[in-house]
Amino acid sequence: MADTKVQILPKDTLHFPDADRGFLEPHLPEKGRKVGKSKFPFTTLTFATSLDSQLALSPGAPTALSGPQSKAMTHYLRSRHDSILIGVGTAVADDPSLNCRLEGVGGYGGKGTDGQPRPIIVDPNARWDFTEHSKLLKLCRDGKGKAPYIITGLLEPPADKKAILDKYGGKFITLAIHKSDIGEHRLDWGEVLQTLVKEDLASVMIEGGGAVINSLLHPKYSSMIDSVIVTIAPAWLGQGGVVVSPQRRLSDEGKPIAAARLDSVKWHPFGDDVVLCGKVKL
Amino acid sequence: MADTKVQILPKDTLHFPDADRGFLEPHLPEKGRKVGKSKFPFTTLTFATSLDSQLALSPGAPTALSGPQSKAMTHYLRSRHDSILIGVGTAVADDPSLNCRLEGVGGYGGKGTDGQPRPIIVDPNARWDFTEHSKLLKLCRDGKGKAPYIITGLLEPPADKKAILDKYGGKFITLAIHKSDIGEHRLDWGEVLQTLVKEDLASVMIEGGGAVINSLLHPKYSSMIDSVIVTIAPAWLGQGGVVVSPQRRLSDEGKPIAAARLDSVKWHPFGDDVVLCGKVKL
Repeated sequence: MADTKVQILPKDTLHFPDADRGFLEPHLPEKGRKVGKSKFPFTTLTFATSLDSQLALSPGAPTALSGPQSKAMTHYLRSRHDSILIGVGTAVADDPSLNCRLEGVGGYGGKGTDGQPRPIIVDPNARWDFTEHSKLLKLCRDGKGKAPYIITGLLEPPADKKAILDKYGGKFITLAIHKSDIGEHRLDWGEVLQTLVKEDLASVMIEGGGAVINSLLHPKYSSMIDSVIVTIAPAWLGQGGVVVSPQRRLSDEGKPIAAARLDSVKWHPFGDDVVLCGKVKL
Repeated sequence: MADTKVQILPKDTLHFPDADRGFLEPHLPEKGRKVGKSKFPFTTLTFATSLDSQLALSPGAPTALSGPQSKAMTHYLRSRHDSILIGVGTAVADDPSLNCRLEGVGGYGGKGTDGQPRPIIVDPNARWDFTEHSKLLKLCRDGKGKAPYIITGLLEPPADKKAILDKYGGKFITLAIHKSDIGEHRLDWGEVLQTLVKEDLASVMIEGGGAVINSLLHPKYSSMIDSVIVTIAPAWLGQGGVVVSPQRRLSDEGKPIAAARLDSVKWHPFGDDVVLCGKVKL
């Protein structure tokens, strides 16, 4: 006899057909991966761009770029990672949700917050000015997402923000600030990723924004990336948007060379878009 | 009995398998197309970029971007068009060959210059400083290409250059110079394309460089493009190269919108690269 129990799913629940999952599998952390195998999490860099390598028309601008299939794919990818990481610029500009709306995860047919990734915000100076009205915390209240961990360089993050995070089960995590070669003060990606493992997060999907992606494609960090999944939409946004293009590299002879290349490349046409999967060539 | 005549082909002759030709066919001018059907030629915009939409590390820099299959494809596309057009910037920076090295065309196993496209250089001020040592003219001497037509705004192009072109069967073609909305003096793409038809060239493949491509993707001109074929290589060149990204568009309400979109889109994985075929959405 068929199960007669009818479950009401939220209207914005997404479906990602099994038939589309296969091509992604070799590029994802194995199911049930636990921390302990490596001091780094399985790290996937994933984003969607236009043909002119732009994430958006401007920071925070709603930019209809990739199709509905690609959107559902993003949520499937989220369901396959323990955490999603973004930079503070994106948090400030987008008021992001960072949850997973795939049918079957917690809040969308599943139990509790099962399958919901932990949002991670990299925010060296704790400048993300969130409140309980921020989308991310609203989703926590509704049982549709987990509270964020905010990775900062501040020894004493703002008390009011800390109180909000405490209430929902999130927290600030303080790491050392380093002076880079070019004099910037910033967190070190290696330490950020190792911190996730200490928090029992065995995998992370890094979604943006431009500054985060460009920095991770630098040879100093690209060895920490296990998998790259880029969706490309057949449109040019035009000059002036948020561009993915890492810092130029120089050869030993001082000549410019490609900043980063992928190998083990697979292209998968997907609706009007294409999905590119690969690994950064070291 | 098998034909025992052995033909020696130049060492740099390229082969493009029949099996790879099919997917391109709907995006190409029909074989044997004649002028007369339209006042415009069949116009294909085609180029190869990195993931960060760059044609080259810098103008004229040899940039190993797309794979050998994509190179052979480019020469097949050249064999399917009556002419190849580039801007003067590319002519100056690259000392280009602009011929077709596909097996079977003139100079590569074929008769005379059969199947060789006519090189068209758009050079408003006739600043391309070519000599008989320029690659393009050397190829003419060797029977491996046709002499260029140079489209200029000068009523009296330099006599020494004109003498060289005359000798090889090329020429200058003078068109009117127009003052654009933003005060630049330039040729009009509509007039350039119509001139090709007057020269009995029923199709043109526009290959670059960045300024030419960005200008043709502007809505003012994109209706003149019949087909767009872009090869994308899985590498980021890094900030500072020659970028394809057209001018930003604004909506009727003054908000930025995508500069250009393609429809009738096909993505074709091709070696490590992908080939995108489509039409500009009007």
